[in-house]
Amino acid sequence: MKTLVLVSHPEYDNSMTEAFLKQCQSDIENVDWVVLDNIQTDFNFDKEQEQQRLSQYDRILFQFPMYWYSAPALMKKYEDDVFTKNFIAFEQEGALKGKEMGIITTLGDPIKDYQVGGREGFSISELLKPYQAIAQRGQMEFLKPFVISQFAYMTDAQKQKLLIDYRSYLTNDNFDSFTSLQKWYIEQLSDLKDSLNDDKKEKMGILIDYLQSNYDQLDELKWEIDLIKKEDDE
Amino acid sequence: MKTLVLVSHPEYDNSMTEAFLKQCQSDIENVDWVVLDNIQTDFNFDKEQEQQRLSQYDRILFQFPMYWYSAPALMKKYEDDVFTKNFIAFEQEGALKGKEMGIITTLGDPIKDYQVGGREGFSISELLKPYQAIAQRGQMEFLKPFVISQFAYMTDAQKQKLLIDYRSYLTNDNFDSFTSLQKWYIEQLSDLKDSLNDDKKEKMGILIDYLQSNYDQLDELKWEIDLIKKEDDE
Repeated sequence: MKTLVLVSHPEYDNSMTEAFLKQCQSDIENVDWVVLDNIQTDFNFDKEQEQQRLSQYDRILFQFPMYWYSAPALMKKYEDDVFTKNFIAFEQEGALKGKEMGIITTLGDPIKDYQVGGREGFSISELLKPYQAIAQRGQMEFLKPFVISQFAYMTDAQKQKLLIDYRSYLTNDNFDSFTSLQKWYIEQLSDLKDSLNDDKKEKMGILIDYLQSNYDQLDELKWEIDLIKKEDDE
Repeated sequence: MKTLVLVSHPEYDNSMTEAFLKQCQSDIENVDWVVLDNIQTDFNFDKEQEQQRLSQYDRILFQFPMYWYSAPALMKKYEDDVFTKNFIAFEQEGALKGKEMGIITTLGDPIKDYQVGGREGFSISELLKPYQAIAQRGQMEFLKPFVISQFAYMTDAQKQKLLIDYRSYLTNDNFDSFTSLQKWYIEQLSDLKDSLNDDKKEKMGILIDYLQSNYDQLDELKWEIDLIKKEDDE
């Protein structure tokens, strides 16, 4: 699976959050990180080039800080320039049909403000409807948004968790399912193991075996349940 | 009441709809018509100048064609540049507090597509949440949006009605109430009367008198109902 992260941030070079997220994914081969400021000329995008770029990926992620309840203007300009009707929705066969679209958004205010009765009054799900509508129009799968709120106040442990969740959002086929997440952890740890010294490698090996047998048991259990259900149906 | 119409349309000079709407309001003294393309420099706006402009109006209307389920990028840039947090929401006393905000949006597709199960899948009310959220944050009153769908296919009679409804949306204190609308029609006809020749003027006078007495009767009726309600409460 190939993933594209399209980043738009009016203060990109000064953003601690963007610097952290960039670092989080820099070693992943199948993820490309593109900053919109670097590919625009006078606030314009090369339509053909960008349409070709988008076509190459399976998962397309828009990453931006929430600016007045939607993406910054430059990201909207990208949509206006690149998403022609023919490209997105030509006779039910748009060029992005079947691909995944996801939103990664950063908030300066706490997430609890984003609900009815909260200071912002509207939920992230409500505010992202225009993006959901584009995905719907292009017959793309709209992923659950990835929301990062108040990065500046996060503890180291919270940042560690963010790193893992973020990597999973970028690379995990099915980042929201428990068994898929467990499988993904095992792969990540196996990769990590190779970079360790022998003593630690052995310990890590034991840990991986434990998780693997745990995963296999869960898988067997699931298989048996499915079998019982099937017998019931017959 | 002073009204500002902020217009953003990437094809402004070629838009028949914008040309028609501009014509509709050109004679109204208390309405100002500002095209964003004409006040930007390299896609940037003068923050202080625009904040000062907005402060002068009671009703602020954003007018744009729906581009990927929200405003064109230039209008978003206006928001990003001009709507600083201090300006909109400074200690519960933002500069636009108590003013009205409205959206005038034009659709190329029929309005019936904009609903659950329709081709676009989402309603205009859902898609405009980000604007409603800005109004809420700035303690502005958010007006019912004014939606114009498929102007190109409108008959002359439909365009006549659009002209009247549009002028009402721009200038009528309470454009959505029946008695207020009737009062507004009487004013409009009185203005028109002065420009007619004597013969027509007399006919128009009779019509205005009729509407006026009709309005007075409604007003009296409302007054009596209020009185009865009040007596019931005591």
